Amino acid sequence: MLRHVPAVSDPRVLVDAATRDDAAVFQVAPDRALVATVDFFTPIVDDPRTFGAIAAANALSDIYAMGARPLFALNLVAWPRDPALLPLLGPVLEGAAAVAAEAGCLLLGGHSIDDAEPKFGMVAVGEVAPDKIITNAGARPGDRLVLTKPLGTGVLATALKRDLIDEPAMAEAVRWMTTLNAGAADAMRAAGSAVHAATDVTGFGLLGHLHSLLEASGAAADLSADVPIMAHVERLVAAGAVPGGTTRNLEAAGAWTTWPRDLDPVRRTVLADAQTSGGMLIAVAPESMEHLCAALAERDVPAHIIGTVRAGPAGHITITEHA
Amino acid sequence: MLRHVPAVSDPRVLVDAATRDDAAVFQVAPDRALVATVDFFTPIVDDPRTFGAIAAANALSDIYAMGARPLFALNLVAWPRDPALLPLLGPVLEGAAAVAAEAGCLLLGGHSIDDAEPKFGMVAVGEVAPDKIITNAGARPGDRLVLTKPLGTGVLATALKRDLIDEPAMAEAVRWMTTLNAGAADAMRAAGSAVHAATDVTGFGLLGHLHSLLEASGAAADLSADVPIMAHVERLVAAGAVPGGTTRNLEAAGAWTTWPRDLDPVRRTVLADAQTSGGMLIAVAPESMEHLCAALAERDVPAHIIGTVRAGPAGHITITEHA
Repeated sequence: MLRHVPAVSDPRVLVDAATRDDAAVFQVAPDRALVATVDFFTPIVDDPRTFGAIAAANALSDIYAMGARPLFALNLVAWPRDPALLPLLGPVLEGAAAVAAEAGCLLLGGHSIDDAEPKFGMVAVGEVAPDKIITNAGARPGDRLVLTKPLGTGVLATALKRDLIDEPAMAEAVRWMTTLNAGAADAMRAAGSAVHAATDVTGFGLLGHLHSLLEASGAAADLSADVPIMAHVERLVAAGAVPGGTTRNLEAAGAWTTWPRDLDPVRRTVLADAQTSGGMLIAVAPESMEHLCAALAERDVPAHIIGTVRAGPAGHITITEHA
Repeated sequence: MLRHVPAVSDPRVLVDAATRDDAAVFQVAPDRALVATVDFFTPIVDDPRTFGAIAAANALSDIYAMGARPLFALNLVAWPRDPALLPLLGPVLEGAAAVAAEAGCLLLGGHSIDDAEPKFGMVAVGEVAPDKIITNAGARPGDRLVLTKPLGTGVLATALKRDLIDEPAMAEAVRWMTTLNAGAADAMRAAGSAVHAATDVTGFGLLGHLHSLLEASGAAADLSADVPIMAHVERLVAAGAVPGGTTRNLEAAGAWTTWPRDLDPVRRTVLADAQTSGGMLIAVAPESMEHLCAALAERDVPAHIIGTVRAGPAGHITITEHA
């Protein structure tokens, strides 16, 4: 798709689509840049208020992943006129508004269209000082890789759709998906220039987003297969609850991933699982890793050390049994 | 829908959803405000490049309607993986990029999801000096109402879908829908403070958008039924080619519109026709109308004088036989 969008060359554009970053960054003043992103998707849980909250946390996450703070957002609504579905839209908007309020992000309107299948998301605009932008492109050999949420939301949402689990089994995933990455962004700011790169883990899975980060940084990485995983996920993968996006992610990863010979196929799938409102993946200088982890802990954000950046073919990932 | 979005009270928010304006406006510096909008919809013409161009002109129109200039945009894509449809996405993006380039608007990426039915649109961000913002809310009794494009795109697109016309019969509509409202915005700036309010005419039709403008301004208006109409539209309405949105617009207008007893029902429908990438509707001080019209003409933008704002119940429209 990107080849149809002409390359941009303008000194005000600090980050565009070329690095597959989480959001675009446009400089409006010497000390000020805007960060803009848009995201929306079909319901992944049954409760409309929860869906709205997840969609808002997910959209705002792209702002946090650039080291920025959200300023304002617009709702993006595609919804059926079906009288059975229309009343669900109100709670969706309320759930989203509550999360936006928690983020200190003002909701200034939005746009809605009729659609056969309900979808909701947000346009989010934030700001960051140009010298504080955290992109995909700065990871350096030796950096440690830190992940702030466990994996498995794609598998769990698919299992829920197929009635393999009930809504209570989604509680852990819902808690993570509605948790803003604001604390992680704040901790990254506290760690300062030691944070070399960051991205949030969403539709392309841990492998896909790490790959983009490494490709933009011109580096490779060793990634532990011993990643944090939500409850029920492994048995559900074994039972076949794998989203189409996850399968596509795993296929794509084949081109730039070296797997240990005997790695459990279930774990391979989890590493590629398409996430919604996933955690922050942070590349931090090794000497500052403890400082970052302490800053994360102070904000009640877990820090899972899952790998190391190293010199090597840009974008290549070698899976290891342990971190 | 709006009642589920909490009211915003923040001095940085210069325009929010409360006035049903075309875009949100957020102040980032004493002399600088950002304008943000999002819009997307299903294809209304068969040619994908033309559809992309229309969608881009339509999204950018909300920026122009606030008196602002576009800075950058993000593509918003919902598209099927269907191998018959996926190749059409490239030309859509290229058509949109060409119009964005014409607008001097940088395309910085975007977001795409799988969807059963193709949809495309844009998030657009622009800027304007806070004292130059043109909202819905400033129209005053005596102001003349000027419209810059003829009506009928909803009817024509519906007729095309129903095979009542072929693509060449859409040529006039395509030309208007792919014409940026940049010239109209530039002319409004040239007319300065004499332009009291403006909006672009889109999904709610001329009646709906004029109603919102009048309601926000606390005024009423006389509107001529003698509006500019694209070729074929009247006979197509008579043949029943009326979009669902237009029918809903006409029904809604009943509550705040006074019709001449003998007005042709076809013309009522045209006044309510849901437009895509429609013209600018401008409320200008009567003594400056000629100046505005000259400024529009200099930029090859037609000026149709279609009515007059007057004191009266906020939002009320009285249709007259002539301007």
